[in-house]
Amino acid sequence: MKKFMNRSETLVAESLAGLVAAHERLVTFGADGKFVRRRSLRPGKVALISGGGAGHEPMHVGFVGRGMLDAACTGHVFTSPTPDQIIAAIRETDGGEGCLLIVKNYDGDVMNFEMAAELAATEHRIATVVVRDDVDPGGSTRSQDRRGVAGTIVVEKLLGAAAEAGWGLDALCTLADDLNGRIRTMGVSLRGVTVPDTERETFVLSENEMEVGVGIHGEPGRARVKFAAADEIVETMLESILSDLAPPRGEGLLLFINGFGGTPVSELYLAYHSARARLHSLGITVARSLVGTYVTSLDMAGLSITVARLEERELSLWDAPVDTAVLRWGG
Amino acid sequence: MKKFMNRSETLVAESLAGLVAAHERLVTFGADGKFVRRRSLRPGKVALISGGGAGHEPMHVGFVGRGMLDAACTGHVFTSPTPDQIIAAIRETDGGEGCLLIVKNYDGDVMNFEMAAELAATEHRIATVVVRDDVDPGGSTRSQDRRGVAGTIVVEKLLGAAAEAGWGLDALCTLADDLNGRIRTMGVSLRGVTVPDTERETFVLSENEMEVGVGIHGEPGRARVKFAAADEIVETMLESILSDLAPPRGEGLLLFINGFGGTPVSELYLAYHSARARLHSLGITVARSLVGTYVTSLDMAGLSITVARLEERELSLWDAPVDTAVLRWGG
Repeated sequence: MKKFMNRSETLVAESLAGLVAAHERLVTFGADGKFVRRRSLRPGKVALISGGGAGHEPMHVGFVGRGMLDAACTGHVFTSPTPDQIIAAIRETDGGEGCLLIVKNYDGDVMNFEMAAELAATEHRIATVVVRDDVDPGGSTRSQDRRGVAGTIVVEKLLGAAAEAGWGLDALCTLADDLNGRIRTMGVSLRGVTVPDTERETFVLSENEMEVGVGIHGEPGRARVKFAAADEIVETMLESILSDLAPPRGEGLLLFINGFGGTPVSELYLAYHSARARLHSLGITVARSLVGTYVTSLDMAGLSITVARLEERELSLWDAPVDTAVLRWGG
Repeated sequence: MKKFMNRSETLVAESLAGLVAAHERLVTFGADGKFVRRRSLRPGKVALISGGGAGHEPMHVGFVGRGMLDAACTGHVFTSPTPDQIIAAIRETDGGEGCLLIVKNYDGDVMNFEMAAELAATEHRIATVVVRDDVDPGGSTRSQDRRGVAGTIVVEKLLGAAAEAGWGLDALCTLADDLNGRIRTMGVSLRGVTVPDTERETFVLSENEMEVGVGIHGEPGRARVKFAAADEIVETMLESILSDLAPPRGEGLLLFINGFGGTPVSELYLAYHSARARLHSLGITVARSLVGTYVTSLDMAGLSITVARLEERELSLWDAPVDTAVLRWGG
């Protein structure tokens, strides 16, 4: 697999520099280029900081801006950012109301964000949210093992809107904890991931195979099964998702179809159509929708479905204005 | 190559239905589902109608909305919409000020839009703009052979803003003709296109090859060359583009990096970074930027660079509010 790059050592820095330059109205590099932050920080609100390995673009850098993240720290491809980067982001964005770190549930990320939080705790009020939206592979309750995948940006959008509206650190944490049980994602891959350093695919699928329950780091999923028609794939995915979600509480449902990087947008909309029809046949109405390539695994072909059960208050947070490189709506 | 679909006969309709449902605030199907149009049509402005074969999503349907297109007609994959579809769109969107048809320069599209315009001419004022932004393969002046590629959406954005601002049909045509000499695009492909009907690639590249000067229908480009580092590829592309552009007239430059469908966004931003640096080294400043997967060729890996020389007036049109599924900014 060919990649559009110069050298694997510099591709993250070059790509980030491109994003910052293309969206200079919204974002800028923080101290020493260690992170990307909102160009206009707003004192008096909780600062939201996220980050993780590169290779998931546009997450997280594409979601820095008004109504969402204040800063994003990017590591090398599939490698956690360092505590040093995270501390720099905390120092620069804390406007006096403390910082909320939004972390996807991977050992490296959790460890480095934790270390940064500990080291910065003497000077800053810090809380951490670990996102775990992946459908449980075992159907068991080992929820600490769930990975943070595409649902992460739903968490970032909702908390971002709440922080913008003046919510304090404790209230944001309570909402985040509550959301963790109400957002579920499942992914399928039609073609593996090519890692720039090796230029090799992490797993190879034949013409009639797909990988079910994949994450976003090229790791294999829970099963390799026969490739099928879109409706059939969607039905299987939704079944897993719905059976793993907390029971409804008079909510509005958000349906989010996410492309992994190598999937054409027309196929994402086809999947959305299929998923919406399937939910409808189950008597479930879609209240909000998102379709696009937002949380990727380099060039992997495939997609994930995220279902979020949102209450009235969270639907308002979803609808609240957002102004980032990728998500942009409202006044 | 696996595709996320049910049957090739229904994939366009299913995908379009998904897009319309996901963006129901903005768009709706026109009469008999023959086209997609703005949900709220605005009488008293020229109606802008575009269209073409499917397989280029999000173009054109993703650009229907306030400040851009009033309707988009979609054919089957890589197949022109029928005159019947186009006439239906004309009838439903003409608010009394006439219709401007924005057509990419391909025989089938030009023929069908022309036929529709002729048939509807007794009841509607109609003008046609044929977009020809592709870099001339021969470096000659046979400009009627240039294809309409990614630059088409720049034309649609500028004309859309002008129509929204009340420009008449003649003024829009004059601007469109003028723009045709000032927008140039060049594409490279790293991996060919898989057509759903056949599930086969239209051309196959080896691991160290790329195709230069490709269009968006899986046709081969002007040359097959050795794959190279991003900076080198970008330099070659910009050289062709700049040598083929009308001379500058105190303009602001728009740099647009477009992904063809199978290219990760991180690589697009890396290309943007490279192109911006290259232009800077030539003493050229980038005034406006666009980076994303907007004009695709199904799942083709690769990207195109579009450079548009815009004057003050056109920069304002670019900045004017737009509210579509894909492009969205301003108040």
